[in-house]
Amino acid sequence: MAQVHFTIFIFSSIFVISSSSFIPPPHPFDPLTETELKLVRTIINKSYPIGHDHKFTFQYVGLNEPDKSLVLSWHSSPGHNVKPPPRQAFVIARDRGKSREIVVDFSTRAIISNKIHVGNGNPKLTIDEQQAASALVLKFKPFCDSIVKRGLNLSEVVVTSSTMGWFGEKKTKRSIRTIPFYLNGSVNTYLRPIEGMTIIVNLDHMKVVEFKDRFTGPMPKADGREYRISKLKPPFGPSLRNAVFYQPDGPGFKIDGHVVRWANWEFHMSFDVRAGLVISLASIFDMDMNKYRQVLYKGHLSEMFVPYMDPNDDWYFISYLDCGEFGCGQSAVSLEPYTDCPPNAAFMDGVFAGQDGTPTKISNVMCIFEKYAGDIMWRHTEAEVPGLKITEVRPDVSLVARMVTTVGNYDYIIEYEFKPSGSIKMGVGLTGVLEVKPVEYVHTSEIKEDDIYGTIVADNTVGVNHDHFVTFRLDLDIDGTDNSFVRNELVTKRTPKSVNTPRKSYWTTKRNIAKTEAEARVKLGLRAEELVVVNPNKKTKHGNEVGYRLLPGPASSSLLAQDDYPQIRAAFTNYNVWITPYNKSEVWTSGLYADRSQGDDTLAVWSQRDREIEKKDIVMWYTVGFHHVPCQEDFPTMPTMFGGFELRPTNFFEQNPVLKAKPINLTTIPKCTTKKND
Amino acid sequence: MAQVHFTIFIFSSIFVISSSSFIPPPHPFDPLTETELKLVRTIINKSYPIGHDHKFTFQYVGLNEPDKSLVLSWHSSPGHNVKPPPRQAFVIARDRGKSREIVVDFSTRAIISNKIHVGNGNPKLTIDEQQAASALVLKFKPFCDSIVKRGLNLSEVVVTSSTMGWFGEKKTKRSIRTIPFYLNGSVNTYLRPIEGMTIIVNLDHMKVVEFKDRFTGPMPKADGREYRISKLKPPFGPSLRNAVFYQPDGPGFKIDGHVVRWANWEFHMSFDVRAGLVISLASIFDMDMNKYRQVLYKGHLSEMFVPYMDPNDDWYFISYLDCGEFGCGQSAVSLEPYTDCPPNAAFMDGVFAGQDGTPTKISNVMCIFEKYAGDIMWRHTEAEVPGLKITEVRPDVSLVARMVTTVGNYDYIIEYEFKPSGSIKMGVGLTGVLEVKPVEYVHTSEIKEDDIYGTIVADNTVGVNHDHFVTFRLDLDIDGTDNSFVRNELVTKRTPKSVNTPRKSYWTTKRNIAKTEAEARVKLGLRAEELVVVNPNKKTKHGNEVGYRLLPGPASSSLLAQDDYPQIRAAFTNYNVWITPYNKSEVWTSGLYADRSQGDDTLAVWSQRDREIEKKDIVMWYTVGFHHVPCQEDFPTMPTMFGGFELRPTNFFEQNPVLKAKPINLTTIPKCTTKKND
Repeated sequence: MAQVHFTIFIFSSIFVISSSSFIPPPHPFDPLTETELKLVRTIINKSYPIGHDHKFTFQYVGLNEPDKSLVLSWHSSPGHNVKPPPRQAFVIARDRGKSREIVVDFSTRAIISNKIHVGNGNPKLTIDEQQAASALVLKFKPFCDSIVKRGLNLSEVVVTSSTMGWFGEKKTKRSIRTIPFYLNGSVNTYLRPIEGMTIIVNLDHMKVVEFKDRFTGPMPKADGREYRISKLKPPFGPSLRNAVFYQPDGPGFKIDGHVVRWANWEFHMSFDVRAGLVISLASIFDMDMNKYRQVLYKGHLSEMFVPYMDPNDDWYFISYLDCGEFGCGQSAVSLEPYTDCPPNAAFMDGVFAGQDGTPTKISNVMCIFEKYAGDIMWRHTEAEVPGLKITEVRPDVSLVARMVTTVGNYDYIIEYEFKPSGSIKMGVGLTGVLEVKPVEYVHTSEIKEDDIYGTIVADNTVGVNHDHFVTFRLDLDIDGTDNSFVRNELVTKRTPKSVNTPRKSYWTTKRNIAKTEAEARVKLGLRAEELVVVNPNKKTKHGNEVGYRLLPGPASSSLLAQDDYPQIRAAFTNYNVWITPYNKSEVWTSGLYADRSQGDDTLAVWSQRDREIEKKDIVMWYTVGFHHVPCQEDFPTMPTMFGGFELRPTNFFEQNPVLKAKPINLTTIPKCTTKKND
Repeated sequence: MAQVHFTIFIFSSIFVISSSSFIPPPHPFDPLTETELKLVRTIINKSYPIGHDHKFTFQYVGLNEPDKSLVLSWHSSPGHNVKPPPRQAFVIARDRGKSREIVVDFSTRAIISNKIHVGNGNPKLTIDEQQAASALVLKFKPFCDSIVKRGLNLSEVVVTSSTMGWFGEKKTKRSIRTIPFYLNGSVNTYLRPIEGMTIIVNLDHMKVVEFKDRFTGPMPKADGREYRISKLKPPFGPSLRNAVFYQPDGPGFKIDGHVVRWANWEFHMSFDVRAGLVISLASIFDMDMNKYRQVLYKGHLSEMFVPYMDPNDDWYFISYLDCGEFGCGQSAVSLEPYTDCPPNAAFMDGVFAGQDGTPTKISNVMCIFEKYAGDIMWRHTEAEVPGLKITEVRPDVSLVARMVTTVGNYDYIIEYEFKPSGSIKMGVGLTGVLEVKPVEYVHTSEIKEDDIYGTIVADNTVGVNHDHFVTFRLDLDIDGTDNSFVRNELVTKRTPKSVNTPRKSYWTTKRNIAKTEAEARVKLGLRAEELVVVNPNKKTKHGNEVGYRLLPGPASSSLLAQDDYPQIRAAFTNYNVWITPYNKSEVWTSGLYADRSQGDDTLAVWSQRDREIEKKDIVMWYTVGFHHVPCQEDFPTMPTMFGGFELRPTNFFEQNPVLKAKPINLTTIPKCTTKKND
């Protein structure tokens, strides 16, 4: 929340809501329940009745982030006997053309904070208003005429919402561009855009405020876009074998509400309409110390920046901030058992508030499963001991928490993988459907322009070049809240003469503690360095600082010009890694109000304060980046492309934490016997 | 083989070997069989009788690489009816202090080539000579006296061989350093080195040629080094669940000799004493074209460079070239079923020639299995089509070919993963045991020096900083032999005024075809670029060049000084990616003779010829690099750290090659029924 003076709205004391059936959820991070969401709606409706004229709408409703010290007190108290922090909802609503931030307290059933947002940008779009905008355009006469003029059938047209971004305008309305697509024989909506029209809808007034028919472009045929197995024709293939997977002792994880316990890990799993899957209070059990130790206070998606690389009229504005504009939770899908997640998975539902505040459920929005990939956790064969041939092998297993969010065309598989060795691997798999532009060409030899901004992936279809930058917010609390960020530089040394061997060089480490934010902005790949989050107050018995290091994936950074509007709005992509001091309001790298934001409330701006980050409660922001030059294999759907990173214990434990894990027994049963009730 | 004039040794025609039971293996790349190895031994022994005085030994015996055009003719002929190339063995032997290269032809049972190597360097060490050197040192009186002087028990000492490298000497002998370790309560050999002695053994003379007792260092206790589950004491944990995995229709792969067929892939799998697992003739079936198309003619480990970062006497020379010095095949282990490879794996044995030419078998040296990791091959949820909610998900499965090579302390898991989408993922997992040095310290606060060259990982034990550079040789033949290497640079463009939108920038691709080797040396991470191997003679129906692109892992390069001797010998680590024109003799990046090499026959030297590589048969060399600052979690064994890369089809196919793969049926059976014989 921006630093703005706010007015506490004291709710009338004569109004009391029955509390007879309301039991607050057990965990302070549990997502808002249907009951709580209804309560929010009821409480707010008293002051802001929802009317037919769409003047007050719920754009975002989420758990109001509780005070961290209160959460930690509660979490660390024996049997959680300390009072949990008050449960509250944070609401961003649209009220007659303005954004209003309301905090509702559940115990008092009162609005305890209420203020108008005076800065730039708008909140997340709701599903209802996108659908309403769609319906509006489909009834807008000039649009219908333009469709007819193109020789297209209006009943086969789908209209989608696209955010407009900001391109230097002093003031902007809460408007969107709408983009029509043509079905007519294909259900792969995104693969047949109808270009050439500029159709702007003001969401607050729900009116078409601009319409231009600039040109009529080509319309690719519907062929080759089918992907439903029930509709595809033979030959099928490649041929892959079925498999049966089963755990005779049952799954290894236990789910207690939203708390997951597995092997040596414990964490809370929640759902937010903007972030999607949220991991909280991830701790690992240390057998030596006989207690759980903190690792990750909170980890979740903060933003996904997806700019396209065609500067022309129909494309220049496509520079999505998917979570902030469309909601990575709101866009999450119901996972299909046995395919989206393996046979041994468990599922959790997600609930979020619709535009009128009514709870909307996405069933099976997250899954948890044990991953037996056939990997080796550790091994050693010792051949040097006379008369003794030693082989010790431990098969690997990890626990995966997964969500899929489909923001229009792209399906993003978001995963958090917990390993018994203490590592947490996080990442994103890109799949789904490309965004394409129709062209007159079927072959590269026909191309007249210098640049078609992508690749011809099918007849009359160009897959447009684009990027994906997926930023994770990681509030690491390595064995406690006060941490430091260490950049262990690997420096080449010339062997000193005093050493007197013929070796000329070696590398050693030069420890640099990042004192302020400026020292912790990292463009990966430029230096040989280890990046470690340490607890400067905790050392191992050998005096090494307890920590977790970052093993990055391949590095990509934004290539847009610094002064380009999408890049100003997404300046958090200037570096792959950032560190900030913990600040409850710094959650969304694109700012609290991402739609049509002007870049004044991004991670990059917060970081300019150059605050101290040594021996402080710090937060890491890691961005997985992909530059995507489409190819024909991406059409009509794209085989998953995965990118991620690992957080790995570094002198966190006194020795290998899985040294004493008994080898898992993995077997196969060509025939198996009935287990009758004994 | 170096370009040296050779003398053809004509075998006496009066000597004929019975051929009654010799059937040549069916595939030109099949590894030398036990019969063939015995034949080699017999044939060579006629001219070079092996004597007790160790004057003639077999250092390397491998399949002599057949002529590529003959292999391709054979492979592409219907039913393989074209005559395969002649089968031959290539032998490097030590003959009275010199290296002799002999080629034996199996059909004529004759030596057809025989020459002395006149350059620098020595061939791979044999197991026997390492063991002999060990035994020698253990009986060497000054050594025994030094052991006693240190208060150690000689019967608890193990002596290992370490190559010496080259440090500027004009001429070198074929000598090694030997390093003693102390057991005495621990079987984890590498974790208790006995430092302070320089013990050099000349392998050709099998004599200790230098012995210096420089100092007596600390000896860490044996505690905490145990890793055998049978010997460890409770508490055990973390607790992991067992699992049963079974394929009701059987595994999807078929193995025919050494040829593996699975889904849409076909490849040959072989074993070489220096490279280990070798993949050949990997082709993928294209359903549209109804034929197999070439992808990878040959892929295998070429070298593993493992330099340590302590310049002092006991460490400065430790800069292993593991494959060239110790043999990555020779050091490969027997894989343990159910742990090293999952329950559904199949295994292949490997055979190599021992020092006297006798075949030595490593059973289960490679495994093949289908990996069901619970990943998603591709998916899409379509929410835009009115009245239709579409969800299509395809669970992923791939085929993994795996080998583990344990070169002393480190276990390297080498993997080739074939995906139905056409991708091949390759990589290496590091596990096993650290190399450590004994110190007087148990705590960092006690350290007096500026640098201890590593981390205190246990009492009196420092894990020494080091690197691993694992180079894969990849003779890609993308849809044919003549390929080019394209560097698609991603360049930022300012939007031209003519475009007339407020977008200021975007990136586009600038295609650079590498014409010569100099243009294809890549240090990853410095530029935003796509690296693609294309077939300039093959285009898709849309005119895109058929290709495979490289998706690198995180990039690491060597930090040693360019003039440092290990770096000269391993100059192939100056770049992460190299391209060379196909040359049958260019196989080992460290040179044919790696031990005590002087760097004159490395990939870096060949590349200086700056040969043409456009529209040629080209080879890619990719190096996976790790800088390793040890931490306590690496002790006493290290949880696997994996690094790799992906080769991904890029306009190789006309569309998504797994679009029409039927979804795999994955189920779980809490109870199952008996399958009786019906």
